[in-house]
Amino acid sequence: MIDICLLGIGGMMPLPDRPLSACLLRIGGETILFDCGEGTQVNWRFSGWPFRPTGTILLSHFHADHIAGLPGILFQISHAGRIEPVTIYGPSGTQEIVRHLVAIVGPLPYELRVTELAGDESIELFDGVTLSTLATRHRMPCLAYRIDLARAPRFDPARAKLLGVPMSDWKLLQAGTAVGEVTPNQVTGPPRRGLRVSLVTDTSTFPALVPFVANSDLLLCESMYAEDDAEERAQQRGHMTAGQAARIAADANVRRLWLTHLSPAVADPLSVERIARETFAPASLGSVGETLTLRFDDE
Amino acid sequence: MIDICLLGIGGMMPLPDRPLSACLLRIGGETILFDCGEGTQVNWRFSGWPFRPTGTILLSHFHADHIAGLPGILFQISHAGRIEPVTIYGPSGTQEIVRHLVAIVGPLPYELRVTELAGDESIELFDGVTLSTLATRHRMPCLAYRIDLARAPRFDPARAKLLGVPMSDWKLLQAGTAVGEVTPNQVTGPPRRGLRVSLVTDTSTFPALVPFVANSDLLLCESMYAEDDAEERAQQRGHMTAGQAARIAADANVRRLWLTHLSPAVADPLSVERIARETFAPASLGSVGETLTLRFDDE
Repeated sequence: MIDICLLGIGGMMPLPDRPLSACLLRIGGETILFDCGEGTQVNWRFSGWPFRPTGTILLSHFHADHIAGLPGILFQISHAGRIEPVTIYGPSGTQEIVRHLVAIVGPLPYELRVTELAGDESIELFDGVTLSTLATRHRMPCLAYRIDLARAPRFDPARAKLLGVPMSDWKLLQAGTAVGEVTPNQVTGPPRRGLRVSLVTDTSTFPALVPFVANSDLLLCESMYAEDDAEERAQQRGHMTAGQAARIAADANVRRLWLTHLSPAVADPLSVERIARETFAPASLGSVGETLTLRFDDE
Repeated sequence: MIDICLLGIGGMMPLPDRPLSACLLRIGGETILFDCGEGTQVNWRFSGWPFRPTGTILLSHFHADHIAGLPGILFQISHAGRIEPVTIYGPSGTQEIVRHLVAIVGPLPYELRVTELAGDESIELFDGVTLSTLATRHRMPCLAYRIDLARAPRFDPARAKLLGVPMSDWKLLQAGTAVGEVTPNQVTGPPRRGLRVSLVTDTSTFPALVPFVANSDLLLCESMYAEDDAEERAQQRGHMTAGQAARIAADANVRRLWLTHLSPAVADPLSVERIARETFAPASLGSVGETLTLRFDDE
């Protein structure tokens, strides 16, 4: 199960009803924060999600509308009593930027780790959860993220019995450990679909995005501009139109698309949704405070 | 005339209805910003005051609740089309902190100047407006500010006539320039009271604050804690109680006191006002978005 809570949907500058980019994900007991524009801590409070379980922060890049809320977040996590390490992932340069921003926060009671990523890796975040990255096309180094929650194959008690494994050892097999000569794959069914969330902002559109986000349960994708005639401007500035985001979603066969990171110049936010739905029907404008729970297919 | 607009009244962390420290002042065509906690740009937008005329930013100190909004503000000023220089004043270390925070803002179309102050100076900000500073007692270098708008003495046309100054030269005398052997003080009345605004946060109470803010038209003063029994804690942490702020206001004979920078632990903000009024009747809790216009005495 993955819970997602969208904290902000604005790009460039916050509007009173359109706070800047930020999104929370909860997997097991762990909270992951993706981007944190100025004001994120206030919308986080509104969401009711606690700060303390946050051990992972993903930064797409270092423009202020994605990162100026970081000092406040680090302070809130500390104020909530966390003493376990917090790891910040981001593109090349994250170490220096974090050092800059931490200068205005007092001493932190937890260890702050920073991992710079190149944009072509897959790493295990925690048990069963993989973080993958793709370098995007923006005006500075920027990363798209994909989070995969694996699902263990179904355990077959009848086969375990047949192979003579005592019931007390079944949990070893379920956890992937052999018992005597019996290996886990002898007592489990075929691989099962897990859950996938892709987080794409800021970037212009390019072909490699489609395989990267393929089959996501949720694609959170920037949609800086509404109308198709802004495509050239989007390309120049390292952004997308609603139609381009929808095209990626359709080609990548994702299940849901949340449009986010709207330009303050988009006067009617719902226009973004209307335009995207012409290409990809399950598109929706991200809504501040919206929470979605993704479950495994037959749960 | 001085207009003042309070943008935030919270200390430490923002609450949904209590944004962090920030205050705008408008004198002539110039806008001055005092402190800018995270979220300042949104409340600034709500106020309706334009960003472009902002050429002066005063920073009390570098704790995140006073400064994390700076990148957003610098961006907004730029987005509003300002090309004239912007000067940031602050205590020792301002240069480095501003450099850190500017790292996440794109290139600015105006020159950003930084002036570090020791806390014992008076400088002319612009014509007729003096900025004075006092080093406060906080957990890091911190400044209180006083802004004085001078008022020219009254011009006496009858005496100018008597001394034979032609009417076409009166404006020279009014501007302080001698005309022939006639000096301005021969044709003007006694000195007249100007306007004074004092900005005090963060600090524990200490005697030198009283003469520094003496006779202010408005004292904006921190009041981190409500109850008197928090005085020891306030002292330790470099803050004040409502009673201590009111004591300064009374001893300094100020006209109005706005209480600000409340701890998030103050559950009933109006308790701060109630307690302060026991000592100083014209005390009031600062109210977000509140605007006050100070005028010369008989205007």
